Amino acid sequence: SRTHRIAVLAGDGIGPEVMTESLRVLDAVEAKFGFTTERNEQLVGGAAIDASGHPLPPATVEACEQADAILFGSVGGPKWEGLPPEIQPERGALLPLRKHFGLFANLRPGVCLPSLTHASPVKNELIPHGFDVLCVRELTGGVYFGTPKGREVREGEVTAFDTMVYKVSEIERILRVAFTAAMGRGKKLVSVDKANVLASSVLWRETAVEIAKEFPEVELSHLYVDNAAMQLVRRPDSFDVLVTENLFGDILSDEMAMISGSLGMLPSASLGGKKEGSDLYFGMYEPSGGSAPDIAGQGIANPIAQILSAAMLLRYSLGESKAADAIDAAVARVIDEGYRTGDIATGAASEKKVGTREMADAILAAL
Amino acid sequence: SRTHRIAVLAGDGIGPEVMTESLRVLDAVEAKFGFTTERNEQLVGGAAIDASGHPLPPATVEACEQADAILFGSVGGPKWEGLPPEIQPERGALLPLRKHFGLFANLRPGVCLPSLTHASPVKNELIPHGFDVLCVRELTGGVYFGTPKGREVREGEVTAFDTMVYKVSEIERILRVAFTAAMGRGKKLVSVDKANVLASSVLWRETAVEIAKEFPEVELSHLYVDNAAMQLVRRPDSFDVLVTENLFGDILSDEMAMISGSLGMLPSASLGGKKEGSDLYFGMYEPSGGSAPDIAGQGIANPIAQILSAAMLLRYSLGESKAADAIDAAVARVIDEGYRTGDIATGAASEKKVGTREMADAILAAL
Ligand SMILES: CC(C)[C@H](C(=O)O)[C@@H](O)C(=O)O
Ligand SMILES: CC(C)[C@H](C(=O)O)[C@@H](O)C(=O)O
Repeated sequence: SRTHRIAVLAGDGIGPEVMTESLRVLDAVEAKFGFTTERNEQLVGGAAIDASGHPLPPATVEACEQADAILFGSVGGPKWEGLPPEIQPERGALLPLRKHFGLFANLRPGVCLPSLTHASPVKNELIPHGFDVLCVRELTGGVYFGTPKGREVREGEVTAFDTMVYKVSEIERILRVAFTAAMGRGKKLVSVDKANVLASSVLWRETAVEIAKEFPEVELSHLYVDNAAMQLVRRPDSFDVLVTENLFGDILSDEMAMISGSLGMLPSASLGGKKEGSDLYFGMYEPSGGSAPDIAGQGIANPIAQILSAAMLLRYSLGESKAADAIDAAVARVIDEGYRTGDIATGAASEKKVGTREMADAILAAL
Repeated sequence: SRTHRIAVLAGDGIGPEVMTESLRVLDAVEAKFGFTTERNEQLVGGAAIDASGHPLPPATVEACEQADAILFGSVGGPKWEGLPPEIQPERGALLPLRKHFGLFANLRPGVCLPSLTHASPVKNELIPHGFDVLCVRELTGGVYFGTPKGREVREGEVTAFDTMVYKVSEIERILRVAFTAAMGRGKKLVSVDKANVLASSVLWRETAVEIAKEFPEVELSHLYVDNAAMQLVRRPDSFDVLVTENLFGDILSDEMAMISGSLGMLPSASLGGKKEGSDLYFGMYEPSGGSAPDIAGQGIANPIAQILSAAMLLRYSLGESKAADAIDAAVARVIDEGYRTGDIATGAASEKKVGTREMADAILAAL
């Protein structure tokens, strides 16, 4: 039977409890589809700071290096907020992981199911059929990692600076990921930039126009980032795939997730290069939402984002697409059947209000 | 009688038609409050490109230099979209005006009146009383103007770069504007940055904490820009004043304007230094929305954003605050009385559906 290796980093807040459920779902599909995952569980984020003083200890990095993929929970919480940014759980774990493993392509679905439009902050008449957007964010370039970055005294005054920088090859590879994703969906790609102000965006736009020639079936259009921030609010259902650079993607994908109203349902994938001789990526998979310390430990968090992250891992990194399909279908079914955690419940009598464990139980039953 | 000088740049699209109405309102308050404005009307944007090949001709800059303030309409349209960014109407007129006149403080109210929540894309139960946010955007620094900016070949590859840079003094002065504005409102200030990633944001946050000491009554808090983009969607009514750097302000103020649903009602002010020996600013005043070429020339655009921009001009640049108050009150009154242009109408029988001219007539009557 096929064996894969995954690093499991549950992290903080609701991370451990939703991770537990996603591993139960993994167990089930492994039995059903005849493969196994060897799991190496390691500390990350605040939990790792408490144990070893660092949000990303060497043992954790090593476990990831030995794995085919990383299943990540979530990190952070009030306990560690006073720390300097570099060693805070979020920044101190996520940015080094992205850089170390070259995870340049962040895929963030922004899905509002037709049956869950009530949970969206947007008026339901604007999204009568919900929406299904895929945000493709460049994750290892731009102003996040560009140098020079720092501060110095200039003309007697403290001055701080960051550099937003892109090489053509960095833009090309993320655009190819986005165009390829669009080919498998609605074949509409919106590239977001600020080409009326930024030199890096001018290069981005030129490159998008070039790469489009490789994908003649995909309809490419361009939006300035300020306009994109507006259109996501007004007509989220007009988007199919959206591609943008690191900082814009940070802002827009979170805005989109909030507009979906289904943060607790949204997985994400951060993909690196393809493995030699294969179509599979090394990648890290995690819920789009945060560690939600306010509801941690109460057994009420929605485990679906974590479970769907495991499904993405199966699809993109392990090639177990039947198992991934089965999980996606089981999740769709329990939503159809009316199972609701608090974040997506309306209180209607027809709903089955459940906690973290019961939601996973329902998904397991549907499998 | 007091005489002031203003440069009037109507621009493109709906600019000229809403400008005409705002000048009629100006006429009325001048007669009522005993002052006059000498108006120097000049071309800008696409109209100026058509006439002279440049979106900001020297004669226009000169008229602005001789004035106490600039009343600006809006610029841009499909006709000029194919031009290189530097000479497009928006970028080629707005950025040089901001830089030339040192207009560092962009005040953008994001107001959703309680009677207009239906026009907001956000569910009305989230904003039962509408909302009233003031966004203070730094307008002459950051990645817009930082150098180096451009492209070059590095290690055989085209590479493009922009520099996000702030000096302490630039951050201090915009924060003082924001804190001062907060003092005159709800005394709550949210400073938005990305201090977990950007060196310029770390300096921004440190400086905010310092300047806060000058304003002990104002409650200062900090949000990361991705989180701010989410909170504006979910709970816009929790904000009082929001202050942020240039690029973040570009994105968030547009997002906020769209969430208000009242783009056609929102004015803005871009303020420079105070005039010598006075509390008045040199400033440029313009609607938050664009030139709306799709509805231009039809007499259906909402003139209120332009009229309220004139009111801001009276208040901040001319010291005619009674006249400004009168305009604000007249606008509030016509909204109360049910006058609605298409953008804010529901179609309810109680509404008086009007065009551009009739809306201004109603405001004039209310004066
Ligand atoms: C924690 C932070 C550095 C990170 C980012 O900005 O990329 C986070 O917001 C995210 O989107 O994963
Ligand atoms: C036209 C563009 C350069 C400008 C900006 O980005 O500042 C516009 O979006 C604005 O907000 O006034």
